[in-house]
Amino acid sequence: MKHFTSVHDIGSLDKAMAAAAEIKKDKFKNYDLGKHRTLLLVFFNASLRTRLSTQKAAENLGMNVIVLDVREGAWNLETEKGTVMDGDKPEHILEAIPVMGCYADVIGVRSFAGLHSKEQDYGEAILNQFIQYSGKPVISLESAIRHPLQSYADLITIEEYKTVEKPKIVLTWAPHPKALPQAVPNSFAEWVLAAGYPLTITHPKGYELQEDFTKEAEIVYSQEEAFRGADFIYAKNWSAFRDPYYGKVLHADRSWMVDQEKMDLTNHAWFMHCLPVRRNMIVSDGVLDGPRSLVIQQAANREIAAQAVCQEILNHLISQ
Amino acid sequence: MKHFTSVHDIGSLDKAMAAAAEIKKDKFKNYDLGKHRTLLLVFFNASLRTRLSTQKAAENLGMNVIVLDVREGAWNLETEKGTVMDGDKPEHILEAIPVMGCYADVIGVRSFAGLHSKEQDYGEAILNQFIQYSGKPVISLESAIRHPLQSYADLITIEEYKTVEKPKIVLTWAPHPKALPQAVPNSFAEWVLAAGYPLTITHPKGYELQEDFTKEAEIVYSQEEAFRGADFIYAKNWSAFRDPYYGKVLHADRSWMVDQEKMDLTNHAWFMHCLPVRRNMIVSDGVLDGPRSLVIQQAANREIAAQAVCQEILNHLISQ
Amino acid sequence: MKHFTSVHDIGSLDKAMAAAAEIKKDKFKNYDLGKHRTLLLVFFNASLRTRLSTQKAAENLGMNVIVLDVREGAWNLETEKGTVMDGDKPEHILEAIPVMGCYADVIGVRSFAGLHSKEQDYGEAILNQFIQYSGKPVISLESAIRHPLQSYADLITIEEYKTVEKPKIVLTWAPHPKALPQAVPNSFAEWVLAAGYPLTITHPKGYELQEDFTKEAEIVYSQEEAFRGADFIYAKNWSAFRDPYYGKVLHADRSWMVDQEKMDLTNHAWFMHCLPVRRNMIVSDGVLDGPRSLVIQQAANREIAAQAVCQEILNHLISQ
Repeated sequence: MKHFTSVHDIGSLDKAMAAAAEIKKDKFKNYDLGKHRTLLLVFFNASLRTRLSTQKAAENLGMNVIVLDVREGAWNLETEKGTVMDGDKPEHILEAIPVMGCYADVIGVRSFAGLHSKEQDYGEAILNQFIQYSGKPVISLESAIRHPLQSYADLITIEEYKTVEKPKIVLTWAPHPKALPQAVPNSFAEWVLAAGYPLTITHPKGYELQEDFTKEAEIVYSQEEAFRGADFIYAKNWSAFRDPYYGKVLHADRSWMVDQEKMDLTNHAWFMHCLPVRRNMIVSDGVLDGPRSLVIQQAANREIAAQAVCQEILNHLISQ
Repeated sequence: MKHFTSVHDIGSLDKAMAAAAEIKKDKFKNYDLGKHRTLLLVFFNASLRTRLSTQKAAENLGMNVIVLDVREGAWNLETEKGTVMDGDKPEHILEAIPVMGCYADVIGVRSFAGLHSKEQDYGEAILNQFIQYSGKPVISLESAIRHPLQSYADLITIEEYKTVEKPKIVLTWAPHPKALPQAVPNSFAEWVLAAGYPLTITHPKGYELQEDFTKEAEIVYSQEEAFRGADFIYAKNWSAFRDPYYGKVLHADRSWMVDQEKMDLTNHAWFMHCLPVRRNMIVSDGVLDGPRSLVIQQAANREIAAQAVCQEILNHLISQ
Repeated sequence: MKHFTSVHDIGSLDKAMAAAAEIKKDKFKNYDLGKHRTLLLVFFNASLRTRLSTQKAAENLGMNVIVLDVREGAWNLETEKGTVMDGDKPEHILEAIPVMGCYADVIGVRSFAGLHSKEQDYGEAILNQFIQYSGKPVISLESAIRHPLQSYADLITIEEYKTVEKPKIVLTWAPHPKALPQAVPNSFAEWVLAAGYPLTITHPKGYELQEDFTKEAEIVYSQEEAFRGADFIYAKNWSAFRDPYYGKVLHADRSWMVDQEKMDLTNHAWFMHCLPVRRNMIVSDGVLDGPRSLVIQQAANREIAAQAVCQEILNHLISQ
């Protein structure tokens, strides 16, 4: 694996699941693999789970980790080409990224969608600039349109808790007070479908995701109908994708919250969410705190997914 | 030791002092003890000494250290149960803490008193939530009402500099321009009394500490009287504990500053303070810079105390 | 080497260049040298290159690294002696620095010129206080008036790319929208002259640097004349040094930008800049992106310079 930005970089999902299972048996088995290797984590947006789990994963492999918090506005990089830099931006991404590449063996980058321009967000400018200019392997720590480490962890979790070969997986939109990117649902759909699972997506009309991610999924506008017979319920809010409402909250219909009554429609389904989660907006306390909630297990598997990805990249570096 | 939040967790103080002395002989003797173990330090308040000394201590033991700066307001966690999370708090502590527990073997937490509500502060909500929900050993890096790593370091320092079996120790209130928590004096009293030393506490009327911490101490309202014959003077400001003035500065009487004239009343006493210290408010330049000041030695012993605590917790983890 | 604050601390530059070349052959050859040693990096100003390269260098030597971001205003240390600390500064540098010294084996400090007072800036108060009070070896990560790790890296780069024994090196002022310190040009001149290279400095009248740094250099007020026959062009902006304009932008004459037409006057010179660089203010896109630009190589050599300095300091510590 040269870079890790989507399910397309992972190769065989069967092998990826087997690699995860191996890591869980002994996290420190490959402690020598990362010796003298430095992972630089660059955060253009805040992070709790991703930062901690990726740092832990890299340390399990004996890597050094350097965290660079850029955050919104704190480090104002120029990205336009040909501009006269006489304003408030002291550095161009054309220098900043290769410089970071000088001091790292692997670079992780987090940069969320701005939700102002679909073209800009779906162009994944920052992630692609790191791939183009850093000269180093790049790991997406959530980009504008995908969150592949989360989806990898989600798939590990499904693998661990499924009781039938092909469980019915339902991705349900749920209400939230502010506009959120489509990265998690895009990516979840992409991974679940790549794994060959049937996927049902349910949301109010207008919240259709980009078809590239969902074309093999079944779209059902009735949440009740979608839930029937489900083995896994994956809840997540996202903002509208379709023009002219890109990045907008069309409405935050609270009747879409996942509660026990809805979970009772399912096949005793497991409940999943990537966290952070708004209690009693996305999901009721009862479901989240109940025995069928997998949210902490998903979070724990973030370390495993990150370690599997780092291992593959380190193996690729060594083989060069 | 499972958790470390007060002197009650330390067991025998004689053994704790002996452990500190052993560490000072060779800080790296137990370098293999922390291998593959991660210490997560979570700061809800700023830190210089605690962060640096605890990080250094953990690295002396071969641990990985991850620092998470939460700080005031930066990460707005919901703590109420049953609430509809439709406001500005994106994550509930019920998820955030177990998630942190996923990626750490030991968690250190700093969270100061808000000084708005005695019930809230003395309930130690944040520290207790980490103990209850993280699933991992928790070290207090200063809680609302105690600063046990400081007190442990203070006791090591007293042990090193005392010249009689039972020195007279005096804790004196001193003026400060803003309201400060009672954590350091509470904790100092608790440790000194647990060690079997006679403790005199002197402060203006109204600054009485919670009796749970001070009931075996002698309270003297005349600073001059208290200082007579003292072997150690420990200066610290704190705000009022008693209702209806909880968390308030009653007055900041500058005549309570520790100066050479007052030190001359003592038995050639050592001067102690936990730092940071307001010069010429709490203590005069002359006393602080003089040959009987132990403030830097106390700070240096913070590393030793933190290492002793980490060692005990690691030993407990291994024994499980 | 006890401290590293200028070229005067480096000893033989021939040996320093040889040490750098050795490190580039195998960065991890001295991985055991830094075992159980902690490098504390204290930043009073923001940093990208310096932080990452120094952290990487120290980790190449097996050191632990702790980064402390102080930044402007965030940590308000009192520096005046004898003052009554009843204002907004909770800690005096007389305690803060020795405390930091307790937990580190080596301390790196970055503190920029304020550009308000020449006396204050050229007195290098903060750097000197760390040397005086920390009790530990101190590395300048850019002080008010020098940036010696940058200059060391620059000299390594010149050594690698020169094709004649004594290349003609030109340091040229270039326009910038805001006032910048003189640390980089001061330091560059100091190192280039110490290496025995002929140095030409060109700038508009009024931008003369302090003579201590430049007295062996040739000052030429015509940029065109200076560039003729040059083998290396080092561009940098700086504010005025001479009274009564200390720290001021006299003018930002855009005709001083380095472009291809000017580079064509040289002896096919290499272009250098310490970064970050304002494109199309300091230098045109064409020159910066062209085949004779060494800016990324300079940045990469920052790691090498930092490692060479850390090695020397560690060797000195061990020899004590």
